Amino acid sequence: MSKLSKYPVTLDGNNVDEKRQEIKDYFHNTYELYEKVFDVLKNDDVFYEKSEVTRHPMIFYFGHTATFFINKLINMKIIKERINSNFESIFAVGVDEMSWDDVNSSNYSWPKVDEVREYRKKVKELVDELIMTLPLTLPIKDDSPMWIILMGIEHERIHIETSLVLHRQMPIGLVKSIEEFAVCPNNSDTPKNSMLKINAAKIKLGKDDSHNLYGWDNEYGDYKEEVSTFEVSKYLVSNGEFMEFVEAGGYSNSEFWDEEGRSFLEQTKAAYPTFWLLKNGKFRYRTLSSEIDMPLNWPVDVNALEAEAFCRYKSQKDGVKYQLPSEAEYRAIYDEAGLQDIPAFHESRANLNFYHYASSCPVDEFSFNGIYDVVGNVWQWSRTPIRGFDGFKVHEAYDDFSTPTFDEKHSLILGSSWASSGNLIMKYSRYAFRKHFYQNAGFRYVISNQEEKKLTDIYESDELVAQYCEFQYGETHFGVENFAIATAEVASKFAVNKTKALDLGCATGRATYELAREFDEVEGVDFSVRFVQVGAKLKSDGYVAFSSKEEGELVKNKKVTIQELGYESLKERVSFWQGDACNLKPNFNSYDLIMATNLIDRLYNPRLFLDTIDERLNADGILVITSPYTWQESSTKKEFWLGGYEDENGDEVKTIDSLKNILNNKFELIHLQDLEFVIKETARKYQHTISQLSVWKKR
Amino acid sequence: MSKLSKYPVTLDGNNVDEKRQEIKDYFHNTYELYEKVFDVLKNDDVFYEKSEVTRHPMIFYFGHTATFFINKLINMKIIKERINSNFESIFAVGVDEMSWDDVNSSNYSWPKVDEVREYRKKVKELVDELIMTLPLTLPIKDDSPMWIILMGIEHERIHIETSLVLHRQMPIGLVKSIEEFAVCPNNSDTPKNSMLKINAAKIKLGKDDSHNLYGWDNEYGDYKEEVSTFEVSKYLVSNGEFMEFVEAGGYSNSEFWDEEGRSFLEQTKAAYPTFWLLKNGKFRYRTLSSEIDMPLNWPVDVNALEAEAFCRYKSQKDGVKYQLPSEAEYRAIYDEAGLQDIPAFHESRANLNFYHYASSCPVDEFSFNGIYDVVGNVWQWSRTPIRGFDGFKVHEAYDDFSTPTFDEKHSLILGSSWASSGNLIMKYSRYAFRKHFYQNAGFRYVISNQEEKKLTDIYESDELVAQYCEFQYGETHFGVENFAIATAEVASKFAVNKTKALDLGCATGRATYELAREFDEVEGVDFSVRFVQVGAKLKSDGYVAFSSKEEGELVKNKKVTIQELGYESLKERVSFWQGDACNLKPNFNSYDLIMATNLIDRLYNPRLFLDTIDERLNADGILVITSPYTWQESSTKKEFWLGGYEDENGDEVKTIDSLKNILNNKFELIHLQDLEFVIKETARKYQHTISQLSVWKKR
Repeated sequence: MSKLSKYPVTLDGNNVDEKRQEIKDYFHNTYELYEKVFDVLKNDDVFYEKSEVTRHPMIFYFGHTATFFINKLINMKIIKERINSNFESIFAVGVDEMSWDDVNSSNYSWPKVDEVREYRKKVKELVDELIMTLPLTLPIKDDSPMWIILMGIEHERIHIETSLVLHRQMPIGLVKSIEEFAVCPNNSDTPKNSMLKINAAKIKLGKDDSHNLYGWDNEYGDYKEEVSTFEVSKYLVSNGEFMEFVEAGGYSNSEFWDEEGRSFLEQTKAAYPTFWLLKNGKFRYRTLSSEIDMPLNWPVDVNALEAEAFCRYKSQKDGVKYQLPSEAEYRAIYDEAGLQDIPAFHESRANLNFYHYASSCPVDEFSFNGIYDVVGNVWQWSRTPIRGFDGFKVHEAYDDFSTPTFDEKHSLILGSSWASSGNLIMKYSRYAFRKHFYQNAGFRYVISNQEEKKLTDIYESDELVAQYCEFQYGETHFGVENFAIATAEVASKFAVNKTKALDLGCATGRATYELAREFDEVEGVDFSVRFVQVGAKLKSDGYVAFSSKEEGELVKNKKVTIQELGYESLKERVSFWQGDACNLKPNFNSYDLIMATNLIDRLYNPRLFLDTIDERLNADGILVITSPYTWQESSTKKEFWLGGYEDENGDEVKTIDSLKNILNNKFELIHLQDLEFVIKETARKYQHTISQLSVWKKR
Repeated sequence: MSKLSKYPVTLDGNNVDEKRQEIKDYFHNTYELYEKVFDVLKNDDVFYEKSEVTRHPMIFYFGHTATFFINKLINMKIIKERINSNFESIFAVGVDEMSWDDVNSSNYSWPKVDEVREYRKKVKELVDELIMTLPLTLPIKDDSPMWIILMGIEHERIHIETSLVLHRQMPIGLVKSIEEFAVCPNNSDTPKNSMLKINAAKIKLGKDDSHNLYGWDNEYGDYKEEVSTFEVSKYLVSNGEFMEFVEAGGYSNSEFWDEEGRSFLEQTKAAYPTFWLLKNGKFRYRTLSSEIDMPLNWPVDVNALEAEAFCRYKSQKDGVKYQLPSEAEYRAIYDEAGLQDIPAFHESRANLNFYHYASSCPVDEFSFNGIYDVVGNVWQWSRTPIRGFDGFKVHEAYDDFSTPTFDEKHSLILGSSWASSGNLIMKYSRYAFRKHFYQNAGFRYVISNQEEKKLTDIYESDELVAQYCEFQYGETHFGVENFAIATAEVASKFAVNKTKALDLGCATGRATYELAREFDEVEGVDFSVRFVQVGAKLKSDGYVAFSSKEEGELVKNKKVTIQELGYESLKERVSFWQGDACNLKPNFNSYDLIMATNLIDRLYNPRLFLDTIDERLNADGILVITSPYTWQESSTKKEFWLGGYEDENGDEVKTIDSLKNILNNKFELIHLQDLEFVIKETARKYQHTISQLSVWKKR
């Protein structure tokens, strides 16, 4: 094993105590490696700089991976107490390429780096203790509390890789070289690429539930494809090979770019790859923390749009169609190369896991049966968008890890890079990014007849999300009116001022739009990006599409456009965000209306929410709560229920009375009514619920 | 370990292969011991005799424990194919003290003993194979398929004990002595009993989920009670001590008997214990297969009613109140005696697990810190009726193991007997019987101030059963009429003849009664005794009482009487039975109407039901099916769905079309309509369903 990075822990074994020790060692290794990545920043001031405007400053990422442990442990009810609720709110969401994350850092006052270091230490101590004391049986299953610890570790492994990209994008003056991250010294001429034949194969993708390594939800399930014979480039495309395209004016010839690519060029004015530097008419190359002569024999780092443009250029030049490999073709290459998973395959045989270098290396250095860099060096873009395999199901602790990327806009990257470790270097891992995104990623090309099927409308098939789409955008049943419209109407009626509203528990966003009929600005917030993305997609793509369940597995596909809904003129007023109602970020404030819809009986600690919600309301602000008070232990531990139990005297405690007791100091109850709603499960089965709606005016 | 009987297998361990072998050994030991019990029957003809009229003939029990494995494995979808569906129907239900089991054996033609022996062999081979091949991780949890194997084994252990009682009740000429079941040779005078002090103690009953032995559902959960200082008899009550009561005319003095006891005396004309024989004016004693001189120093075998009568007699005589120990008091005795669970406690120290004798032995033979027979010799009746502990939940594979006994009429028996083995000899096991029932059971008495709380109306609190009580006997909601009444009305309208009807999937029985308004005889059948007992109780006790959920854990207790329902005059027309619609016993036949209510989408193989149901209908018979067709894998494996999927051509298959295809040859579809129903979950949350009702006339 390399000194810097350990292999992932297996889930099985015979000795629980030894397993705890292994997990602890792996956790420490991960945690320390992550901190080493931040040693690349020149000094503490740099933590407040961004690698580019659309990203958070570095301090966010430094805190983020530690707060992830705590937020997941709280949500899964494994621990009850937060360590620092402010940190755990401002460092909470990290997938910042997405619209529903808030990257306007002027909204926060970031803490001192030393405070975050201190916080990281506390988290480490807590996680250490949990590793030693949580109930544990082997093999570790995805419903084990220890799975959440492994999830936190693998999450940090991802950020080791992505943070290194951010640091590499930092101005050179803000980073420094450190001994452990040494650059490859081999730099020479362009090796000539050529094509190798890959035999037809029946490919089966997807990992069994019984696999003995931690996996993200998207890795499990089943997918089969027959791959015809095809050819693949022997090497990854090198800087030298890509140079041809650049020098032929590839970046300014729009016929090599598709619509998304042209939009990328317009926005960035790119004329060559992002880690190339043009100095005195000569291309140089940016490594993590140095600038070096152009290594023509290293793989080029590009995004998927640049890789596709190169393929179009080369196709035109050679009169043969080149394209990026599909996911199944890549597996055929992998098999043909005789590769096996770690540890059967030793890390020393490829440029990964920080074993050799903290940079790329020549494309002709690591051969696998004559095909080079099948794994390692840089990630390889695929033409396949990430999709769930048959049998896909989200893990409840991280239900928005994958599904927001199942939008046909996120392309898979294959094979891992020099900066990959942990789950990222394993055979079954699957990561995907938007095509304009940079990673330590390049590409190889194939000649194959197979076209990737383009899906057009994506019908939401996640059962729960689709059920909510039907609930908010579908038909009405039993004569009960649309609940999102009805609540927004009542709430608007009682609102005194109408500048800004918060739709908390917005689900798929219908009420957020409805409130925008009256309010200048409405923010829709939900705990799960799975839901939030529906409202966001209505805004960006102009429609909501979903599969409504009819009988058994039979569905009816439905699509509603923003025009049909009459929201075209309202869409600039709404925005959608991921957030935890029990620990909302500080920038969610200054509202004239906060509407909490069917939320309080689903919170892990509803009191936490109610105790401070008044602080986010303007004077004369209105709080609207709707709920059927269906308390259940799976959402809320009994000790946190607001009602539905007997107190120590044997008296019945009802939720509405607790609401009055809790809110009475700060609010006046001005309206109370019942409001029905109906959720369709199938064409013949419905949930029919009588929600109580209460309107509270801030005193 | 004794040669005859092995200790139960622990659930934990480090080696899966060794565990499989242990389970296999334990299974074989159980299976062989059970067959040895039947060697006591003189010859194969005796298998068709009954120990008493209300019981099945012995052949039933011989087949029953083997079919139990298959029925549970089928129901849990661990296996798909039955071995012999006829055997698995006629040998299916064994709790024959209850009204819902059919003990009228003229209804069956019993198979040959050798056929059953052959069948048992096949089951053994299948179980052997499953033990070696089922997925297995350690510790074994209650959701593991291997748990069902252990359930089958422990179920057979129970029948080893109860079958020995049945054999002991057989006419002496029909049984024979076998070498392995030797009677205790020590027979002498009555030892003088005395009282010992037991210190006050805080008692905690109930087994943790993590306990390393198989347990029945009623063992788990949590119960705490403070027990005050009390006194307990040093010995179990011996035949000699009980003789006093008999000779004092105890059986004919009604003041020593409560209402249930007097009714027992009336029915049985008992004048002394059941295993005593009065020969030439002298009492002799029946062992398993011999008659011996009265062993005055052995414990008396009595039922709970006789034990209570003795206590009342002795209280009157001594002027001190004696009663049977409560469950908590027994644990205090157990603790005071310094007892531990097997294997820390060795079986040789008590008369249990067939280690010493196949009979009782002197009450002064096995001492535990001066208290005798705290475990072993004979079971000891408790004054506590069996109840579920806090946190009780049924195991889905056997949901009517315990709940039908939570009726305040089943008393716990404590401490195990010479014929107990397996789970029955373990500390946390809990078994209970009706008070008039005989086991290898006697008693000891206590002087204690604690009274057992008598519950009067038992409000059904099993969440699902209570929900169905509310559905069938509670209020209507959203203006939707009572579904049981509505379906019975439609079905009655279409019925041509009205002699006999079957309400299949009768749940808590409302429609069964409603059909009895029109039909001379109506049989209500459901898969679960948990449900069937509600309708049966309405008939026997004249009311239905249940806790209807309002908010969280808060409930409203409701009670409906048979007079209010107007069923007083109908009750002799209805009867309730446990049965599997996919494998109904042959005696369920000759109906003019079969009504299958919300059943077909809950069956493991609905086709099996539909293919032969016509055979149970008379000429002009009517079949009524209602269902919302909510197919789900948890009830029905996808391959058995009748609709709700796409066929191999991608065409949608709907349930109603499959029903037409399957039934078309034998039935004519004469009516089709929608019928709504509403099931209350809480005061604010309801399931609102649109069932499809189809009426089929036999061709």
